[in-house]
Amino acid sequence: MGRAVIGIDVGGTKVRAVMVEVATNEVVDREVSSSSDDGPTLVDTLANLVVGLGDRTGHEVAAVGLGVAGLAHRSGVVHYSPNLPGLGGFPIGPELQEALGVPVVVGNDATAGTFAEWRLGAGQDADNFAMVTLGTGIGTGFVVDGRLLRGASGFAGESGHMVVDVDGPAHRTGQRGPWEYFASGTALDRLGREAAASGEFPWGVAEAGAVDAVASQHVAAGAAEEEEDALRILDGFCREVGQGLANLVLVLDLELVVIGGGLCGIGEPLRAGVEHWLLELLLGSEYRPAVRVVLAELGAEAGALGAALIATEVL
Amino acid sequence: MGRAVIGIDVGGTKVRAVMVEVATNEVVDREVSSSSDDGPTLVDTLANLVVGLGDRTGHEVAAVGLGVAGLAHRSGVVHYSPNLPGLGGFPIGPELQEALGVPVVVGNDATAGTFAEWRLGAGQDADNFAMVTLGTGIGTGFVVDGRLLRGASGFAGESGHMVVDVDGPAHRTGQRGPWEYFASGTALDRLGREAAASGEFPWGVAEAGAVDAVASQHVAAGAAEEEEDALRILDGFCREVGQGLANLVLVLDLELVVIGGGLCGIGEPLRAGVEHWLLELLLGSEYRPAVRVVLAELGAEAGALGAALIATEVL
Repeated sequence: MGRAVIGIDVGGTKVRAVMVEVATNEVVDREVSSSSDDGPTLVDTLANLVVGLGDRTGHEVAAVGLGVAGLAHRSGVVHYSPNLPGLGGFPIGPELQEALGVPVVVGNDATAGTFAEWRLGAGQDADNFAMVTLGTGIGTGFVVDGRLLRGASGFAGESGHMVVDVDGPAHRTGQRGPWEYFASGTALDRLGREAAASGEFPWGVAEAGAVDAVASQHVAAGAAEEEEDALRILDGFCREVGQGLANLVLVLDLELVVIGGGLCGIGEPLRAGVEHWLLELLLGSEYRPAVRVVLAELGAEAGALGAALIATEVL
Repeated sequence: MGRAVIGIDVGGTKVRAVMVEVATNEVVDREVSSSSDDGPTLVDTLANLVVGLGDRTGHEVAAVGLGVAGLAHRSGVVHYSPNLPGLGGFPIGPELQEALGVPVVVGNDATAGTFAEWRLGAGQDADNFAMVTLGTGIGTGFVVDGRLLRGASGFAGESGHMVVDVDGPAHRTGQRGPWEYFASGTALDRLGREAAASGEFPWGVAEAGAVDAVASQHVAAGAAEEEEDALRILDGFCREVGQGLANLVLVLDLELVVIGGGLCGIGEPLRAGVEHWLLELLLGSEYRPAVRVVLAELGAEAGALGAALIATEVL
């Protein structure tokens, strides 16, 4: 049994760990446990998870990587995590390192997922790309000029909060008109429900059983059957995704966008729609090499996997 | 006489060259000539400029760097330049290299200016900063994780075109509500004139002689004398600058913003106002290290100087 690293995606309700063999970059084991936003409790949970995986596989655990939503500082202190509010200010990295006696690297979950898609997934052929995770919110991470972007504190990629409509609707963050309001999975839920309420998505209402029950999965199901209302709703949503991506391409000059998160299940209609609107809305796209849009390949494990791969960098 | 590089800022009406001694990074000579958007004419102009500087100083010219506004491809082909429309598609880099027999490196002018402020100016102590040039439009360049960002084609930093108000006013680019519409020097001209037209800037009208003659310099002059209307107009403008900067900090996690361009002459009221609004509008700023805003140090020569410094990288 050789050396391994463990990557852990630290979510609000559960923590998801993968063990990656250093020599091969292969996942050799995985485990899920419940999460906590009490710092010492979380350290115990994570330490037990790591020790348990080591015992079970016989691998020596050489380092651990954590991926945390929100502002996870390079130093290992979580400054703010929307999913783990009680963790704010807690030095999860140093504490876990103290408990385990091996290096612990802390980063943002979307940044970690980006690294995984770059090394093993849909971004393998790109030196300049964004990974965009469409879920409750929008997570983003970037590779530019052949390097993972981290920023001053490791907080790069909070692009979901980028304001695209300064006089727009108020978002739960208190901002008006951030990209996430218009283009997250939550936004597609809302678009579906609004269409249902105004009588413009009867197929979805029939499928969901009630107007209020209509959500993104009904738009997805309708689009899969080429139902016209669902396709129109999805097209409007893809425009919102493309609008924010056009901003990011202007800032960073990306050649590729990898779309991840739960909405990925919509598949080709989502990919093609986002690509269409990105090129349509991108200023000067006729003078630029075309930006490609592809679907993520690594699924829900990307964050944990990326955290593991980043941890190998300290070895 | 030792080796030197020449950096040239290729503008719409003039080209501005500086000669930098390789051993010392000191500017040893400078020259200005008229520009042209006819490719072959421009090559002749630039070649004459370079040869003339070499002859005059006795330095051996080892490489040349060009900074061009717009989409200047890494390969040396200008894909699109708003100031030099006829140059679109012209391989200015390879053609000048052929004419001179020394390496010619082509990049964006704002990216070059950023590099200069990083190496010799206001960004020297920062690994993560944006240089933002407020002029006719907005130019931006970035250093992140201790490296100059270039992007897939070298087009990174077109942030002035980032849309911040999707339903906003139409800009000359055809977009609605790009940051540049609200926060460039042109925008401050407009804010001053609009205030004048609605009777809210009589000081400026008196200074300018007529409502239609009011422009950013009258806002600047008023602010310098702490004239109340001018300070209010400037404050609104600083808010617009800060709004776009907040987006960029969310995306890139910058620790510092360097403000350059003609509006820099406003000085401390501009710097302090932008810093105030950036921190005010930046989501989660209470959880982040404070982002500092400073004024650029290298003035109008930054682009040429940066082009020269970038050219030294090929030696």
